[in-house]
Amino acid sequence: MMPRVFTNTRLTAGESLPLSGEDGHHFVRVLRVKKGEEVAVATPAGTYLATVEQVRTAEATVVLSVLSRLPSHESAQQIFLIQGIPKGDKVDTILQKCTEVGVAGVLLMQAKRSVVQLEAKKLSGRLSRWEKIAQEAASQSQRDVVPVVRYASTRQEVKEFLHRLGTSRVLLLDEEEQTTGIRTLLQRTKTFTPANAIVIAVGPEGGWDDSERDWWHNEVGAEAVSIGPRILRTETAGVVAVSAVLYEYGQLGG
Amino acid sequence: MMPRVFTNTRLTAGESLPLSGEDGHHFVRVLRVKKGEEVAVATPAGTYLATVEQVRTAEATVVLSVLSRLPSHESAQQIFLIQGIPKGDKVDTILQKCTEVGVAGVLLMQAKRSVVQLEAKKLSGRLSRWEKIAQEAASQSQRDVVPVVRYASTRQEVKEFLHRLGTSRVLLLDEEEQTTGIRTLLQRTKTFTPANAIVIAVGPEGGWDDSERDWWHNEVGAEAVSIGPRILRTETAGVVAVSAVLYEYGQLGG
Repeated sequence: MMPRVFTNTRLTAGESLPLSGEDGHHFVRVLRVKKGEEVAVATPAGTYLATVEQVRTAEATVVLSVLSRLPSHESAQQIFLIQGIPKGDKVDTILQKCTEVGVAGVLLMQAKRSVVQLEAKKLSGRLSRWEKIAQEAASQSQRDVVPVVRYASTRQEVKEFLHRLGTSRVLLLDEEEQTTGIRTLLQRTKTFTPANAIVIAVGPEGGWDDSERDWWHNEVGAEAVSIGPRILRTETAGVVAVSAVLYEYGQLGG
Repeated sequence: MMPRVFTNTRLTAGESLPLSGEDGHHFVRVLRVKKGEEVAVATPAGTYLATVEQVRTAEATVVLSVLSRLPSHESAQQIFLIQGIPKGDKVDTILQKCTEVGVAGVLLMQAKRSVVQLEAKKLSGRLSRWEKIAQEAASQSQRDVVPVVRYASTRQEVKEFLHRLGTSRVLLLDEEEQTTGIRTLLQRTKTFTPANAIVIAVGPEGGWDDSERDWWHNEVGAEAVSIGPRILRTETAGVVAVSAVLYEYGQLGG
């Protein structure tokens, strides 16, 4: 697999791109790239093929020569996951799997039935760790962008997250929803355009409580949806629902 | 969650069902069910609501009273996964997730690039362990049946497995397939009916090798398919592809 680096720099074919810091270290000391080796440089405006022009071993820096644009691997339909914080290391699994599949971002939400209550002082360390997992999975799955990872300790913060997304359609996964399946719902509403984000909301173990249900419906305008009679674990539900949306929008290979 | 037991017994409403052995032990010693408690009895012909009629603590047996048939949780479209054996404990994850989502069975195949070579003397122990994982996941996700778990050390055994399924459609997940996406393929062929099984074949880490590709195409008649430009880990690909097929056939809640 071609080594991959993510950068926010705007690139043009023909230019040189120096890499130092963590990226330089990773390329020189971990991957041990050689002069002339091909690498991929992923930017928010697309991914470029590049070759290693110089390796400065002592300083752990490399200089890349940017060659040409590669085809995008991103879904045309933006999908976000809002995940009620589950137990143990399930957040890691969810971030990894949903990044591979192609989410644009994940918001981890302190839900009523979340057993784990994240302490404020541990938050920044935890977010760095989660971002690192998303970055590794984005690299592995050859994405153009690393999904954003955010945390909301209150419902107000969830609303602010949604507000920043602009017009979006929020699908509330709910075991108590018996009538409307995800396919029926996605195919019924044709006015919604792929330009708007789709947000999948998944509760923690034990699901959403009634006050949360009311809030999602009345304050957010979420649509309750079933993904079938088989009860999925919280760490399985998100990736399955995201896959379903990608499939509907022709973003699983068409 | 209502306790659940799987049995091959054919049941009718009104009859009594004694449980001893492992099931009796589980109900009496682990779940500590009480007289009058509701339980689900899953059989290949459907799942029944029952109540606990007697608890014999000393012998670790219970007698259930079968009440009425519950709605089926099974997919009308049968889907099987053939998984090239991956590294480490990934088989466990794959079995758990695919069982939750709803596969009818999983065949673990010794593929060319499988790093793990299962020793014959360890096979029966490993299969018991895998069946147990499938059973636990089937119970958790409230399925009517436990998916079958099989192992094939040779391609001939894969063919025999497929032969026993009868007419089936085999989709070969292949990173090298660039043109045909899973949605295009499933929607293109309308002659195939849900009465026939769909089989998803996923390679181990590193994918299928060329001799396997040839074999799948020429000997099995498999159709190569892409699930998109984002490269999924082997333990992610199966559950995503199975979800896609379930979605297409209206089996994720309709």
